[in-house]
Amino acid sequence: MRTMNRKKAEKLPLYEEVAAKIAYLVEEGTLKPGERIPSIRNLSRQMQVSINTVREAYGFLEDRRLIEARPQSGYYVSARLPEIPSDPAPVPSQINPTEVSIGEMVQMIMRNVLNPKLIQLGAAIPNPELLPMEKLSRMLSAETRRHKVQSVSYAIAPGSEKLRKQIARRMLKAGCTLRPDEIVITTGCMEAVFLALRATCRPGDTVAIESPVYYNFLQLIQELGLQALEIPATPSEGISLEALRYALDHTRVAACMVISNFNNPLGGQMPDANKRQLVELLAGRGIPLIEDDIYGDLAFDDERPTVARTYDSQGNVLLCSSFSKTLAPGYRIGWIAPGKYYSQVERLKMTFNIASAAPTQLAVAEFLANGGYDHHLRTIRRLYARKVGLMGEAIGRHFPEGTRVTRPRGGFSLWVELPEYVDTMQLYAQAIKDGITIAPGPTFSATGKFRNYVRLNAAFWCDRIEGAIQTLGRLARRMGPPPPRTGQES
Amino acid sequence: MRTMNRKKAEKLPLYEEVAAKIAYLVEEGTLKPGERIPSIRNLSRQMQVSINTVREAYGFLEDRRLIEARPQSGYYVSARLPEIPSDPAPVPSQINPTEVSIGEMVQMIMRNVLNPKLIQLGAAIPNPELLPMEKLSRMLSAETRRHKVQSVSYAIAPGSEKLRKQIARRMLKAGCTLRPDEIVITTGCMEAVFLALRATCRPGDTVAIESPVYYNFLQLIQELGLQALEIPATPSEGISLEALRYALDHTRVAACMVISNFNNPLGGQMPDANKRQLVELLAGRGIPLIEDDIYGDLAFDDERPTVARTYDSQGNVLLCSSFSKTLAPGYRIGWIAPGKYYSQVERLKMTFNIASAAPTQLAVAEFLANGGYDHHLRTIRRLYARKVGLMGEAIGRHFPEGTRVTRPRGGFSLWVELPEYVDTMQLYAQAIKDGITIAPGPTFSATGKFRNYVRLNAAFWCDRIEGAIQTLGRLARRMGPPPPRTGQES
Repeated sequence: MRTMNRKKAEKLPLYEEVAAKIAYLVEEGTLKPGERIPSIRNLSRQMQVSINTVREAYGFLEDRRLIEARPQSGYYVSARLPEIPSDPAPVPSQINPTEVSIGEMVQMIMRNVLNPKLIQLGAAIPNPELLPMEKLSRMLSAETRRHKVQSVSYAIAPGSEKLRKQIARRMLKAGCTLRPDEIVITTGCMEAVFLALRATCRPGDTVAIESPVYYNFLQLIQELGLQALEIPATPSEGISLEALRYALDHTRVAACMVISNFNNPLGGQMPDANKRQLVELLAGRGIPLIEDDIYGDLAFDDERPTVARTYDSQGNVLLCSSFSKTLAPGYRIGWIAPGKYYSQVERLKMTFNIASAAPTQLAVAEFLANGGYDHHLRTIRRLYARKVGLMGEAIGRHFPEGTRVTRPRGGFSLWVELPEYVDTMQLYAQAIKDGITIAPGPTFSATGKFRNYVRLNAAFWCDRIEGAIQTLGRLARRMGPPPPRTGQES
Repeated sequence: MRTMNRKKAEKLPLYEEVAAKIAYLVEEGTLKPGERIPSIRNLSRQMQVSINTVREAYGFLEDRRLIEARPQSGYYVSARLPEIPSDPAPVPSQINPTEVSIGEMVQMIMRNVLNPKLIQLGAAIPNPELLPMEKLSRMLSAETRRHKVQSVSYAIAPGSEKLRKQIARRMLKAGCTLRPDEIVITTGCMEAVFLALRATCRPGDTVAIESPVYYNFLQLIQELGLQALEIPATPSEGISLEALRYALDHTRVAACMVISNFNNPLGGQMPDANKRQLVELLAGRGIPLIEDDIYGDLAFDDERPTVARTYDSQGNVLLCSSFSKTLAPGYRIGWIAPGKYYSQVERLKMTFNIASAAPTQLAVAEFLANGGYDHHLRTIRRLYARKVGLMGEAIGRHFPEGTRVTRPRGGFSLWVELPEYVDTMQLYAQAIKDGITIAPGPTFSATGKFRNYVRLNAAFWCDRIEGAIQTLGRLARRMGPPPPRTGQES
């Protein structure tokens, strides 16, 4: 009781509380300069305080010149306030990354996407210039006019039939025969992977993942109360089957999760024979495989590779993908073919958010059916192959001696190993001051590996980016090398 | 080893497996009549089987007239196959509902939404004719043209700034002062509630809910491994504060969850005094309140009611809502103002699906800013008030004696108590045969209550619906009443 009274005594008088709320909205730009604010009577009714309290509050705000009374008309936000800029660029946090958790670092990398002033070498986002923005906008417009009721109605899970048919057709190119009714549309590939983990694992379970692994997978695993078991992966082979087999012999694993094609961050592609073996290895032990194929359509070769699901006859592979790297991340159109976990996944999707947005499902379905998706893919594959190659060369020119870099066969990420003296969490902190965002190696591990690695997004490569690579090289060099051992000379 | 060999022996020969996969895609409509199928060489490469196997498979399919070879051109799906209808209406399951679980019943009710042949008295969906379909489509088109890059890019959590500002402005009408940076955009209100539960509860925790309660809340609680504690609610008062206080004195509760305005299914509105008391009661015990205000804008009065959050000064209320009942369920635009749980909710949103669709965020923001939302609300509030009134009267005319029905002050759901002899799970099974979908009472309880209750959606009311009400009344009467007691006369 005493505590409660003391708390109350510390509170503002009621009219100041009311005034503070209004001031918030003004400072924040929700109430704009020159705009009318609620009448005293209305606000009193709404906030359930006396007319006198609101009058006192408005007087208080008038004194501070935040609002002004106009005779016969009411109260207005003072017109002299500076306009709030409509699109404030969020300022990246200046916190020293060695003090931030990996989770906070991941959030920073993702938020940096919104800052148009930064050079985007961090998050693996596609270059908007290579997305069919205008055509998608036209299709959004045409499809929502053509299917009026459908466009505003719940596309209840499993989602748009037309879209699922198109996806099934596309997957033939991966040698993968899916029926449309085996597919559930999701809000992006992340949601697909989330649903797959929820359907196959219980809190406390262990998930075998590639190492290095896409940082959001680690966040997801942590959030769901799961344990990550890191299995080494290489660009040429993907996850090490030998290491995986050994791990499975010694650890109880509830699910295995891989990006089979153009793995993020390695950019490697699992050979078909390995995909087949992986499927057999896991099926033999009754362990489901969660396969993410989000980069599959971005193969630099003419033909897109198969998926592990191609070799699965038992419904043991939960195949996840999306159009976020090829068409429009902002449309949030992903999908999952959950195999024998179909009914769990469909129920979870329905329970967690009922459906994904209908208009963007309609637009993507139409793009796949009549938008020239294959032609679009040929164009961007060629461009990304070129950008990835050029950035790799620039890294060779500007990064310290001893740097190694992958030669991906698809996607747009480069995985760079710097000399041991480089701490890429520190490098992030320094680069961001120069307006460059990167993805430091430790975000790709649950156990603090890859301190001297960095993932760089080559999607935005152009001559201007060479300067950024140069800057990163200079910053990295400044961290070392350690003074040469003088040996006999000393 | 022996087991594996036996399994293999049961398998189809390889060429039949290949043929079966192609046949699937044809029967299913993914490969259309007259359409070219992959060449023998390509399929052999994709599926990693020999050329001979594919040749045998294609021969097998030719024999069955599913495909045909055209000289110099390749293989085609036979043109004589009937076209798959483009929009097959899902046939509602005929399973007897007394044998289905509540979860399966809920899924049936939701799926029925997709069947245009049914009279929609089941799920609480708005009438599409009362949604501003054309204006939204125009805004979708204009906004994605105006904000090209933004419309295809991740609207990383917390989501569109413009939309969050508009929401903050609107909530002033509920006497609720929110800053835009206190809001996170979600994929509908269900996702908002899901994130709120995830942010405040751990598996095993108990959540206090209203009884009867919206069925999807129960599904969510079950899916998250939580326990539901049902507190009686009435249309006039909402959740019983007395019963809640008693429950809190005797049970450890992690969160409380209410629909404060036009509660689904009761349609009642908590008085402001009760909202304030509820907030104080929970804050005093450090228990977060998850408040769903999805129907708040559909008040039949001129003014929309306050929310419990209006009375919260400690960030203890996680306020959830959406535009699914007023603008477009299919746009999946919801939001949450999670109070002091902001950072958890934002992180969870980012981890589970990164962002909600950008184009529909842009369109809804523009509708709120310049679409005449208030005018739209005035129109549909009047219409829904009328529909709810007329359906209530029709129930009075056609349902068995002893039936009682709510008189909601907002929303579009009626909660109907039938005589005790009526089993509404049975009523569902019979009504669906007559093309009518309803929401049986037991779906609104975790403990099998409300066997003789039903929720009816009045949003589609028109003269034609009177026939459906009449049918339901007739079906209900047929279940009883029990033969009159003959007493002394016998």
